[in-house]
Amino acid sequence: MLNLGVIGYGYWGPNIVRNFFSCPGINLKRVCDLSPERLAKVTSTYPSIQTTHTNRDITTATDIDAVAIITPVSTHYEIARECLENGKHIFVEKPFTSSVAEALELVNLAEKKNLLIMVDHTFLFTSAVKKMRELITQGVLGDLYYIDSTRVNLGLFQMDTNVVWDLAPHDLAIINYLTGQHPHTVLATGIDHFHQNSENLAYITLFYENNFMAHLNVNWLSPVKIRNTLVGGSKKMLVWNDLDNEDKIKIYDKGVELHTKEKIYQALFSYRSGDMISPNLNPTEALSEEARYFVQCIDSGTQPINNGWAGLKVVEILAATDQSLRNKSIPIKIPSLHG
Amino acid sequence: MLNLGVIGYGYWGPNIVRNFFSCPGINLKRVCDLSPERLAKVTSTYPSIQTTHTNRDITTATDIDAVAIITPVSTHYEIARECLENGKHIFVEKPFTSSVAEALELVNLAEKKNLLIMVDHTFLFTSAVKKMRELITQGVLGDLYYIDSTRVNLGLFQMDTNVVWDLAPHDLAIINYLTGQHPHTVLATGIDHFHQNSENLAYITLFYENNFMAHLNVNWLSPVKIRNTLVGGSKKMLVWNDLDNEDKIKIYDKGVELHTKEKIYQALFSYRSGDMISPNLNPTEALSEEARYFVQCIDSGTQPINNGWAGLKVVEILAATDQSLRNKSIPIKIPSLHG
Amino acid sequence: MLNLGVIGYGYWGPNIVRNFFSCPGINLKRVCDLSPERLAKVTSTYPSIQTTHTNRDITTATDIDAVAIITPVSTHYEIARECLENGKHIFVEKPFTSSVAEALELVNLAEKKNLLIMVDHTFLFTSAVKKMRELITQGVLGDLYYIDSTRVNLGLFQMDTNVVWDLAPHDLAIINYLTGQHPHTVLATGIDHFHQNSENLAYITLFYENNFMAHLNVNWLSPVKIRNTLVGGSKKMLVWNDLDNEDKIKIYDKGVELHTKEKIYQALFSYRSGDMISPNLNPTEALSEEARYFVQCIDSGTQPINNGWAGLKVVEILAATDQSLRNKSIPIKIPSLHG
Amino acid sequence: MLNLGVIGYGYWGPNIVRNFFSCPGINLKRVCDLSPERLAKVTSTYPSIQTTHTNRDITTATDIDAVAIITPVSTHYEIARECLENGKHIFVEKPFTSSVAEALELVNLAEKKNLLIMVDHTFLFTSAVKKMRELITQGVLGDLYYIDSTRVNLGLFQMDTNVVWDLAPHDLAIINYLTGQHPHTVLATGIDHFHQNSENLAYITLFYENNFMAHLNVNWLSPVKIRNTLVGGSKKMLVWNDLDNEDKIKIYDKGVELHTKEKIYQALFSYRSGDMISPNLNPTEALSEEARYFVQCIDSGTQPINNGWAGLKVVEILAATDQSLRNKSIPIKIPSLHG
Repeated sequence: MLNLGVIGYGYWGPNIVRNFFSCPGINLKRVCDLSPERLAKVTSTYPSIQTTHTNRDITTATDIDAVAIITPVSTHYEIARECLENGKHIFVEKPFTSSVAEALELVNLAEKKNLLIMVDHTFLFTSAVKKMRELITQGVLGDLYYIDSTRVNLGLFQMDTNVVWDLAPHDLAIINYLTGQHPHTVLATGIDHFHQNSENLAYITLFYENNFMAHLNVNWLSPVKIRNTLVGGSKKMLVWNDLDNEDKIKIYDKGVELHTKEKIYQALFSYRSGDMISPNLNPTEALSEEARYFVQCIDSGTQPINNGWAGLKVVEILAATDQSLRNKSIPIKIPSLHG
Repeated sequence: MLNLGVIGYGYWGPNIVRNFFSCPGINLKRVCDLSPERLAKVTSTYPSIQTTHTNRDITTATDIDAVAIITPVSTHYEIARECLENGKHIFVEKPFTSSVAEALELVNLAEKKNLLIMVDHTFLFTSAVKKMRELITQGVLGDLYYIDSTRVNLGLFQMDTNVVWDLAPHDLAIINYLTGQHPHTVLATGIDHFHQNSENLAYITLFYENNFMAHLNVNWLSPVKIRNTLVGGSKKMLVWNDLDNEDKIKIYDKGVELHTKEKIYQALFSYRSGDMISPNLNPTEALSEEARYFVQCIDSGTQPINNGWAGLKVVEILAATDQSLRNKSIPIKIPSLHG
Repeated sequence: MLNLGVIGYGYWGPNIVRNFFSCPGINLKRVCDLSPERLAKVTSTYPSIQTTHTNRDITTATDIDAVAIITPVSTHYEIARECLENGKHIFVEKPFTSSVAEALELVNLAEKKNLLIMVDHTFLFTSAVKKMRELITQGVLGDLYYIDSTRVNLGLFQMDTNVVWDLAPHDLAIINYLTGQHPHTVLATGIDHFHQNSENLAYITLFYENNFMAHLNVNWLSPVKIRNTLVGGSKKMLVWNDLDNEDKIKIYDKGVELHTKEKIYQALFSYRSGDMISPNLNPTEALSEEARYFVQCIDSGTQPINNGWAGLKVVEILAATDQSLRNKSIPIKIPSLHG
Repeated sequence: MLNLGVIGYGYWGPNIVRNFFSCPGINLKRVCDLSPERLAKVTSTYPSIQTTHTNRDITTATDIDAVAIITPVSTHYEIARECLENGKHIFVEKPFTSSVAEALELVNLAEKKNLLIMVDHTFLFTSAVKKMRELITQGVLGDLYYIDSTRVNLGLFQMDTNVVWDLAPHDLAIINYLTGQHPHTVLATGIDHFHQNSENLAYITLFYENNFMAHLNVNWLSPVKIRNTLVGGSKKMLVWNDLDNEDKIKIYDKGVELHTKEKIYQALFSYRSGDMISPNLNPTEALSEEARYFVQCIDSGTQPINNGWAGLKVVEILAATDQSLRNKSIPIKIPSLHG
């Protein structure tokens, strides 16, 4: 039985608590938050959970084995370091940290202490992302040409961050997982309409080797919610509309093939337009699966797909994106600290 | 009665011929194309129209007052110049020309000869674009924050051009018309998956004065057709989905307002989420209206909204976009040749 | 504080328990179910709730003031009667009872004992239904012409009931509430594809006075889920698509008007096709509101809109529908036991 | 070369003329209409076509081999009879005639004269209906359980007919073609909101042998246009949304199977929910194909799938539907005059 503490019961915390509370193998002992109202809500819903407004009652507690850190990103590093130093596994909300240096230090500390870091890249545990990963690794889509993702809505403007750090971590974690590749360069354009040193709308292009490219459209100022991702492959192409409850993924037998007739040095294209298949997807709750996976990985000593290195890779791209935005949209090389 | 000749009866030509043929005030006398099969099709559908495979039977003909040039862009300049030199008004398929210099020369020539140039920016004559123009000029949307347009589909790969010159002219003509502004800088990322010196997918950011920005997503390699434009304003925001036959335009009473409480130097946002209105749009055929407008402008000596200068402005942005794509996506200043 | 017991923790029970548990003014003391596995689930999620597998521990308990009966419809009458006889208010899952006689007896018993019956017509507490009720009572739609509802999906075939008793109660409760009218006659066609004495698909026409008509399409064997209701009025018409998260209700300024020119005894119609408005709807959880309303009605001694008489009216129509289906689809007069 | 005359150039006539004019093997010689304005439109669009306002210039003309009758249904019989008596093949707009007796007389007359009747059931020539016919005849859907069709919109109220005769012929022709079966009984409910002796909304149930049932929802007073058909089969089920340009037909690997365990005399169901496939459909224009088929059938002496008997079968059901509506929705047996 894994004794768990949760720090942070704001917007996302209640979902974490609900799923970890009902997860077999987890004993959710204590929740920490600064707000007495939130803690009262914990108590009324889960009378068996203890509450505290002091982080140290969790980070240094001897009766806690692992900690879920569901606080604003600027606080992740301090809390996470304290947890690791006190021998606790950690589950950290995305994005992992607010800088590459912080992420790197935590990853190294966890390795030294032989502790597990899991970053909450929830989408990796959805049926849709798992199905896409399967289609790509099994070669159904062929060589990947591009991924084009739109993630826009009327979003909460956050003072301490921008739309990139808020929305793009989802896409970056997904694209990293789907492709197994890391972009070598990023370039971003964006605008801060309200002069808050915080872009509320940004367009991010990721450059890769191998004829592949990715593009992200993130926007806090859209009248409608769009969650649409196009994946172009040499054999098939797909559309993932996460808001479509019936046909979330549509795989199109459509494509273009290039034929070179050597003698006449002339290129010709042929088009293919066949059936569309929408695979049946299992409607499990991703967060509940991620909670079970957390326990499993700790029990078996396995590195999760969303470990600290995976979190670090996302932060590397976010940081480079910010650098491009701060420097008139010049292309920024992304270092490969993750080896 | 305006005696009209049409040069080019390929993909778009038949639509032009159908609409100009039935347009009051126009006598469509002659159609030119290189292909005998296409000319046979003209004859069988419109026995009264003469056919020829020689441009000069139209460009220099004394019984022709105006010429519609519906050929590949690389040929526009030569044919257009010949028409103007022979005293004919011209209607030119978009994009106007393949370079800024060509466009400028044609515009100057037409002014000198007192002839009219109309560039086929058909979308300006749709009920949707007219309604958006009305909403913007009447201040319903407030100050414009951004326009974000997606125009993707499985498109014909064209050897002599790229996806930017094929699809972006629509968006550029529309954005120029809606905003009345010209971008000072453009930056584009893109990829040429088939190594044809021709991007088949590109992302274009247009930078403007006044806190406004535009972004275009054009793609020949998308499994699905998307024609979706978001327009963000300070008072209202709208979505134009050109493929939605019922509710093409949706106007959202949604927005974000910034409040600054001076004493505490703290910025606060408030959100508004009200009703959505989808205005009733008149389902007229844009091309038919554009044909009537062509006659009117010639008769009254009025400069059309889609005149040579309007065509030139679009070509300026297209050329700068290409320059950015050819130079590792650096930002390119857009000259203002159009005064 | 209202001490509540819940009987039945099957498909719908957990939703009831979750909402009543967190409802202010309610002390959810005890849950009854026959299955030990389900009771274990209650205990692990709500350690403070007692469990039992004996109805009488709730129906006759002196520390219980009100009972939520969330069991199969065939058991409602017995349990409800026992509750009322023991002085307990009841909240009963829809449909209220399996016969008109049962419903009538319970309603009379409750009145005699001065106890409250609330039937779980959850949809009446959604923002969509409340908005439609407002539009109708305020005269925005004008005179009602028709309501046409489609409620189909791949549904669980239930042995002890048919698709009418499973799905139609929703529509009937809504239509009764929206119109304030009771149909005088019902006629139904349907089919029992698997020879189980249980229609899995049915079409129900309800006849009313005043030029109004309603139609229900209910189906357990549809490949797709549809929840679509058209409401035709003399002034405006609306569409309620309950699966559309963005624009659940669309109000169309469309209609037909009849003009009679007396002299020529000729009828002429004119059509109106104006804007569409989709009102902003508050996304509250209906069941949570219904729970608070239950407490309120008991505290204030008010009859709820979904009281026993409302439940009885729905059962009257369901029973008449069954009679029509059993008798070769003849029209069946609906008695007005409810005065 | 088939010399063709067309009678009627109202709402649908221009589509007929456009498609037959450009159909190989057809010489469209003459168009008749009472309105000089409409005839002027014929002349301006097709200068080679002669015009007349007298039917007999076509029905009795010696230079005409076949006649397309695109007039109001009440006039079909007279004109058709005159054509057949004068040795002309006929193409008749749907519905074929306004009574069963008229249809039967025409069919017999054509057989006696060895002439061809084709009824304009255009939908049979769409890729969607052809694909569904293929799926059904090849057994992909298994045994048919039901067809449920919704065909509603804000339609023109017609004085001389009701919504049933206006919209249902499409569905009836399609269902007859798909199933190859004829219903033995029909029952309809409906309402005439404007007291014009003409239902503007009707619900039609068709009863068949073999566990199969069909239902039609036709409505002239709907704020939105819906063209949605569900087809339930024992192996697969499909949805045909004719307004969806991308995925018109969706085939669901969903279903319910009944298992009977003999010993315990208990029925159990199991559910299947697999992938969805949307077949690629060829976007040809149905009317153009129907025109070519008309020539082919005449040339080869073949009976078309939409011959006079097919037209008669539709009229039989329409007439029985009217009878049910006129008689308080009683079930009406449908005679089998067609053998």
